[in-house]
Amino acid sequence: MKRDLISIEDLSEKHLRDYLELGKRVEGTSPEVCRKVLAGRILGVLFYEPSTRTRLSFEAAMLRMGGQVIGFSEALNTSVAKGESLADTIHTVEQYCDAIVIRHPREGAARLAAEVSRVPVINAGDGANQHPTQTLLDLYTLQNLFGRVDGLRIALVGDLKYSRTVHSLFHALARFKDVRFRFVSPETLKMPEYVIEASEGATTEVIETTSLEEAISDSDVVYMTRIQRERFPDPVEYEKVKDAYRLDRAALQNAPAHLKVLHPLPRVNEIATEVDSTPHAAYFPQAGYGMTMRQGILAHLLGGKL
Amino acid sequence: MKRDLISIEDLSEKHLRDYLELGKRVEGTSPEVCRKVLAGRILGVLFYEPSTRTRLSFEAAMLRMGGQVIGFSEALNTSVAKGESLADTIHTVEQYCDAIVIRHPREGAARLAAEVSRVPVINAGDGANQHPTQTLLDLYTLQNLFGRVDGLRIALVGDLKYSRTVHSLFHALARFKDVRFRFVSPETLKMPEYVIEASEGATTEVIETTSLEEAISDSDVVYMTRIQRERFPDPVEYEKVKDAYRLDRAALQNAPAHLKVLHPLPRVNEIATEVDSTPHAAYFPQAGYGMTMRQGILAHLLGGKL
Amino acid sequence: MKRDLISIEDLSEKHLRDYLELGKRVEGTSPEVCRKVLAGRILGVLFYEPSTRTRLSFEAAMLRMGGQVIGFSEALNTSVAKGESLADTIHTVEQYCDAIVIRHPREGAARLAAEVSRVPVINAGDGANQHPTQTLLDLYTLQNLFGRVDGLRIALVGDLKYSRTVHSLFHALARFKDVRFRFVSPETLKMPEYVIEASEGATTEVIETTSLEEAISDSDVVYMTRIQRERFPDPVEYEKVKDAYRLDRAALQNAPAHLKVLHPLPRVNEIATEVDSTPHAAYFPQAGYGMTMRQGILAHLLGGKL
Repeated sequence: MKRDLISIEDLSEKHLRDYLELGKRVEGTSPEVCRKVLAGRILGVLFYEPSTRTRLSFEAAMLRMGGQVIGFSEALNTSVAKGESLADTIHTVEQYCDAIVIRHPREGAARLAAEVSRVPVINAGDGANQHPTQTLLDLYTLQNLFGRVDGLRIALVGDLKYSRTVHSLFHALARFKDVRFRFVSPETLKMPEYVIEASEGATTEVIETTSLEEAISDSDVVYMTRIQRERFPDPVEYEKVKDAYRLDRAALQNAPAHLKVLHPLPRVNEIATEVDSTPHAAYFPQAGYGMTMRQGILAHLLGGKL
Repeated sequence: MKRDLISIEDLSEKHLRDYLELGKRVEGTSPEVCRKVLAGRILGVLFYEPSTRTRLSFEAAMLRMGGQVIGFSEALNTSVAKGESLADTIHTVEQYCDAIVIRHPREGAARLAAEVSRVPVINAGDGANQHPTQTLLDLYTLQNLFGRVDGLRIALVGDLKYSRTVHSLFHALARFKDVRFRFVSPETLKMPEYVIEASEGATTEVIETTSLEEAISDSDVVYMTRIQRERFPDPVEYEKVKDAYRLDRAALQNAPAHLKVLHPLPRVNEIATEVDSTPHAAYFPQAGYGMTMRQGILAHLLGGKL
Repeated sequence: MKRDLISIEDLSEKHLRDYLELGKRVEGTSPEVCRKVLAGRILGVLFYEPSTRTRLSFEAAMLRMGGQVIGFSEALNTSVAKGESLADTIHTVEQYCDAIVIRHPREGAARLAAEVSRVPVINAGDGANQHPTQTLLDLYTLQNLFGRVDGLRIALVGDLKYSRTVHSLFHALARFKDVRFRFVSPETLKMPEYVIEASEGATTEVIETTSLEEAISDSDVVYMTRIQRERFPDPVEYEKVKDAYRLDRAALQNAPAHLKVLHPLPRVNEIATEVDSTPHAAYFPQAGYGMTMRQGILAHLLGGKL
């Protein structure tokens, strides 16, 4: 059966743990051996909207596994301009390559692509919907930083209402054992009930708060996200909260020594650059773990031997 | 002598048959062996206008032969913006690569490039003029679907007046033995006399008709093309004919079992998607044969041993 | 210590000679052996403004040394659009690749990138500031054409006031032995005093002139640059001088047989195309030497064994 990676919700706890194991196996394999795993295979990178970080990470991952890359980085210079349907583009591109990574502004586009494609399809973000490799790399980062995901105390900070990154991450984390959550957000951007209810971790412990300070002093991980001004109907409301969810050195004064700060990037100003040089900053290594995780994902979906 | 591929009209019947033979040889060679044929060679892909399908097909072909690719996919981010002549761009890029594939909006651009270049040049479309690798892949598709090109009964459907794809294809097919043609088009978009006369196949049998239905029942191949609204001075005329040249399941009811439908792609709506799942649909495999054909073309022009 | 290449002014005479030696070593190494030098290494090509020539040259150089390439060719489709700082982009991209080539419209951008990056950074042009690999390839071209840089008589022609290419080249050439300069420009575009003074070649001989003719008859090398209309406050002034600094066959009539004409390219009309077929024209081979020089630069900075 063809393997795809479309939504984090398709993955059981076992699947998630298997992926983390895959990442570990990539790390334990020498670069020379890695370069043989997907030698001769071609990845089609179809980015209908720009996302440099994700695209470069996938391309580097494919190259490091010995494969090659074709594709485009924005829809402008594609047959789209000539009115071709997504299904037709997939039916064509699958003739040229062995797997497809797709990023598309329309929700459901990756699922559609996977349904019509003969080759494995990876969702690299479809609108505000899903971005499963981001979630996997977040998990893999935790695994690397703490040696485990189980039992961690994780603060999710910022816009918890609209950020699908956070919803997917919560959904995935809730499948691990004894993960304890702190949801840190302004009142108007609280985590929706339906997201909490949909999580399958029956024993999940959740504390909701508006205080970032409190979360910092009592967590292993602070996962920051951007709060966008346009989410607030009243700009005055935005001005009130924006600084409360900005992480700087002062805010980290009472942090436990082992606390790690993550961020899906790009950041704008929700983490002060002065934090970068603290031992808490883990958001750039997080990007590096992303490449490793994607090496494992590509090897797995393409049936490469690791 | 340097080899180029600029116009289908430069190729004799023998050349055409040799190219088909080349495609077959690629197919008979293992991927591992293919990857040694052009190892260390670099293809310069200069696309002055976007054409994702053609570009990705060439790039995948080069990579599958073991080569590498440099280039650009639209003129915007090139020295063109600084006023450099095409000849100068070629004189520069030929320093970096071992062959050039060029797509350019201006008729004759590829010929000019070939004249000034030290390295082989392949025309991937110059304005409304020539696109010889499309014709070769069309022939190669027929060869694969039927085991031969000789003796086929081929219906060319749609805009036969302006479509250079069709003109080139007719020109090439007429060089094979006993190919019988049916030209299916609205009165206003008939195949021009000069195209028919220029064909060198003295014994070519041509039937002209406006009826797609009739053609379907009596052909081996139906080669569809797009009818563009803007070709009709009177929109009422367009409305009258557009459905007559739209292929759906109903239209294929009386088709012979072995009938194959081809299309250079992208299609807009001239073939209903419901046709895709019929055994007649061959337009997506056609794209795949395109890559194989281009692997052979690249190997040949670059002097790779196959 | 990490190696970068940011400004030609960072390089001593010894450094310059070492780089020329590197280029020679690339040339003396077979393509097969070259392809092992950087096998498995990835170059991040971050072009925040288009520059096809430079980008393709670097990419071809990396591929010829056995490495691979990721990147972008204009800032539009990058995280820049989301407001990410250059430092953050570097901190991310350095996770994916082994060296970075950056081109940026802002002066000092490459220096900043080098300061924050863990991996080697090469400046491929930062605004009007520096483009050190252009200077190195110019030197390498001289070395190849004449077997030496020392003792050459070099005419720098055109806009000597604003062209940083020329300033950097002069600065570097002045470090070699007995190079004699002729500065050929309109009165209003003379080489600035501060550039001449900053050169460290104490014994540098400089003759300033407005006559291209005189320079041609008494030089080994004529290095042409573009005179831009917009540099002249008064268009009448531009009209007066533009033809005086345009090189054609007639102008070369009294040139010594061994005279070579260089140009950083792209040219617009400051060298007539009729010059291309004379034995004096060396500007296209110069582009080719550029690739070789960059192969050497990449090998050196990435620690590849040559």
